[in-house]
Amino acid sequence: MTSTIDSGIQPLQHDSEGARRAYELDRKHVFHSWSAQDLLDPMVIIAAEGSHVWDGEGNKYLDFSSQLVNTNIGHQHPAVVSAIAAQAAKLCTIAPGYVNDARSEAARLIAERTPGELDKIFFTNGGADANEHAVRMARLHTGRHKVLSAYRSYHGGTQLAVNLTGDPRRWASDNASTGTIHFFPPYLYRTAFHSTTKEEESQRALEHLEQLVGFEGPSTIAALILESIPGTAGIYLPPPGYLQGVRDLCTRYGIVLICDEVMSGFGRTGKWFAVEHFDVVPDLLTFAKGVNSGYVPLGGVAISPEIAATFGQRVYPGGLTYSGHPLATAAAVATIKAMEDEQTVQHAAFLGETVIGPALSGFADRHPSVGEVRGTGVFWAIELVKNRGTREPMAAYGTSSPEMNQLVAACKSRGLLPFANFNRIHVVPPCNTLVADARAGLSILDEVLDIADGFAA
Amino acid sequence: MTSTIDSGIQPLQHDSEGARRAYELDRKHVFHSWSAQDLLDPMVIIAAEGSHVWDGEGNKYLDFSSQLVNTNIGHQHPAVVSAIAAQAAKLCTIAPGYVNDARSEAARLIAERTPGELDKIFFTNGGADANEHAVRMARLHTGRHKVLSAYRSYHGGTQLAVNLTGDPRRWASDNASTGTIHFFPPYLYRTAFHSTTKEEESQRALEHLEQLVGFEGPSTIAALILESIPGTAGIYLPPPGYLQGVRDLCTRYGIVLICDEVMSGFGRTGKWFAVEHFDVVPDLLTFAKGVNSGYVPLGGVAISPEIAATFGQRVYPGGLTYSGHPLATAAAVATIKAMEDEQTVQHAAFLGETVIGPALSGFADRHPSVGEVRGTGVFWAIELVKNRGTREPMAAYGTSSPEMNQLVAACKSRGLLPFANFNRIHVVPPCNTLVADARAGLSILDEVLDIADGFAA
Repeated sequence: MTSTIDSGIQPLQHDSEGARRAYELDRKHVFHSWSAQDLLDPMVIIAAEGSHVWDGEGNKYLDFSSQLVNTNIGHQHPAVVSAIAAQAAKLCTIAPGYVNDARSEAARLIAERTPGELDKIFFTNGGADANEHAVRMARLHTGRHKVLSAYRSYHGGTQLAVNLTGDPRRWASDNASTGTIHFFPPYLYRTAFHSTTKEEESQRALEHLEQLVGFEGPSTIAALILESIPGTAGIYLPPPGYLQGVRDLCTRYGIVLICDEVMSGFGRTGKWFAVEHFDVVPDLLTFAKGVNSGYVPLGGVAISPEIAATFGQRVYPGGLTYSGHPLATAAAVATIKAMEDEQTVQHAAFLGETVIGPALSGFADRHPSVGEVRGTGVFWAIELVKNRGTREPMAAYGTSSPEMNQLVAACKSRGLLPFANFNRIHVVPPCNTLVADARAGLSILDEVLDIADGFAA
Repeated sequence: MTSTIDSGIQPLQHDSEGARRAYELDRKHVFHSWSAQDLLDPMVIIAAEGSHVWDGEGNKYLDFSSQLVNTNIGHQHPAVVSAIAAQAAKLCTIAPGYVNDARSEAARLIAERTPGELDKIFFTNGGADANEHAVRMARLHTGRHKVLSAYRSYHGGTQLAVNLTGDPRRWASDNASTGTIHFFPPYLYRTAFHSTTKEEESQRALEHLEQLVGFEGPSTIAALILESIPGTAGIYLPPPGYLQGVRDLCTRYGIVLICDEVMSGFGRTGKWFAVEHFDVVPDLLTFAKGVNSGYVPLGGVAISPEIAATFGQRVYPGGLTYSGHPLATAAAVATIKAMEDEQTVQHAAFLGETVIGPALSGFADRHPSVGEVRGTGVFWAIELVKNRGTREPMAAYGTSSPEMNQLVAACKSRGLLPFANFNRIHVVPPCNTLVADARAGLSILDEVLDIADGFAA
């Protein structure tokens, strides 16, 4: 591999024996997420810093995936690393029933940034259990059972969360028993509503949703959950008026609106939360990932006063041993403060407006394999097609393809770790990626799209 | 408060202003597990070391709860604190798809300690999602849907996990739609089978289970999950032959046996895993808590070769961003090594045999409020009754009572943090509690049981 990137960090003195042993033990003992275990040949990562990682041979890569779109402040941010070490030396763990200063401070910092009056924070271990608990709160608050969620969505891997999900990862766990019902979201590029404009798509998607609510019975629906800007499903931004329309519909029918900001929150879209782009305040907002860049497992639910009040005199029947974990919340405190100090959210917005957005627009102009580009901040998708006219995707829905695999390999061989899903490559680097690094990564993508063009009619 | 305990650690120079602020922010912004939010007056904890914690006024308490029965190596073990700081400086987070040396090494150390050939480890964030994923593996491995679990059990707080649970915490989330079916476990003190001996209880409980399997249809049952030794539900040890009988029944009908060792694993019972007491090897074993004493959120599933093979060529449809988190697994590596170096598991067994067990037997002899004591290692329950003849509990099933609240308060006012559930006080200190501390805590309990005796007929 020849790295085409150099941001001044020297290649690692690497321990190839250690990397080999880690690989062997992994193959022997580690069972991997979302994988056929015998078909894996995973890359060893021995180090990471900022927007870069190093593999077992000491090769350096620019991380345009932020891992699973979680390292919003990049790898190994010194302020967060220090805060973890300091909190570890002070108090690693304490049960959720006690008061802990790191937990209190994290709750304050998050509550100050969430929109509206979402001022009570229930901490979980990650995004999946955040969504599970949000649904429970909504069900008990309303006394209703059903939950609406979107096709083309991801809400987590546990049983209820994966059933909320509108993605093939749900299928193996779905026997239609969890009270989840899926609606079609607005997605103009592959419209379900035969629309030709964003405005039309927005209006028709809202009409569809209102019809669905009517047929299901508003009095049976506890909650509607959606990603403010859907992530892995395609970073398709809601068209004008859509989220506000959903908010109005939920208010009208007494349905709890849950905005899943697990991937879109904490700077990813160039704002603290993606809902801010749409001037909407949900009743519950779930988060994880960017809250502390995943340095320590943490997720949570930000709760409206009305829903919190439901559990004022009445027990909230849910919990977990690590709720409000000191180490995890101390990492969140340090992350949020560092993001404020360094204007990380503003930088993400700047990268989107002046570097990534313009570059991707250029790709769309020049590369026939690019069907559409869309995004904001450091949250962008390139939709790859075999044919721009028919919009035939470079890989069918729910699958990869030899072509997509070749493009991913081409990125890696050029020193770029991409985030790929089905027929899309997402451009989701850390929020604080240097402009030069962003440009270097985009330049690699430009090269790789030349290969993609060869697959396109 | 006057602490009656002194293990040589000096009272803290405490920051009462900081504690007050932490409390105020908590009440304003933190939504607590399993609680009516307005009825809380949580204790501030500002520091912890070994088997002790300090409150916001600098008062010192002996922790006979291990928090939520997770700090098996006590608070702030220096080797684990150092390992967390070292891993934080090296690599905090990496996606599950890569190989990471901390994850590989933790998987090896865990696989070497789990019984039989449970040699593949799927890492989760905690116990709830470990059980959720274990059930998914069992369902897909067998092609069946139903899961049997015990009344008087706890398996976690997410939707499927809480429905596995046989405890009132399930009720609010249970609409009988998760495919979970509950059986009566053997529990001689409050037998459901009209038994008079352990042997009879074991045999009758197995007959009941076999009947239930027959009525439900063995071909519909994917898994049977139970805590090897049930924890919060009462630390009631399975009687002779029971677990082996369950193992045989599962094998006979092709039902996956899942042993939940979230609370009982990693030394708590005086062995690495509680199943070792019964010479049984499950098909899946779930863990969390003690694996790294909860210093960093971590759980997992240890998987048999047969079940791992099901997902050899076929994708396992489950995952999570923080699966095999480097910081969490590095803490597990350090914890397991420290427990080996310091013979922590052996010490837990020793405490049970020579200190706690004999003391509790004495309580049962002397205190009329003590209905039964039972346990092993550092995993013991004192069942409190108002009447030894009728066995009327000191609090009704699923509730607390003024009497129990008074006993808990009496422990705290004497510098002891107890673990109480319904009518029971559990004696669950860290595995490495000093003998002198254990004796001091037991001496406080002895005093408090004098108060309890006043409530008993």
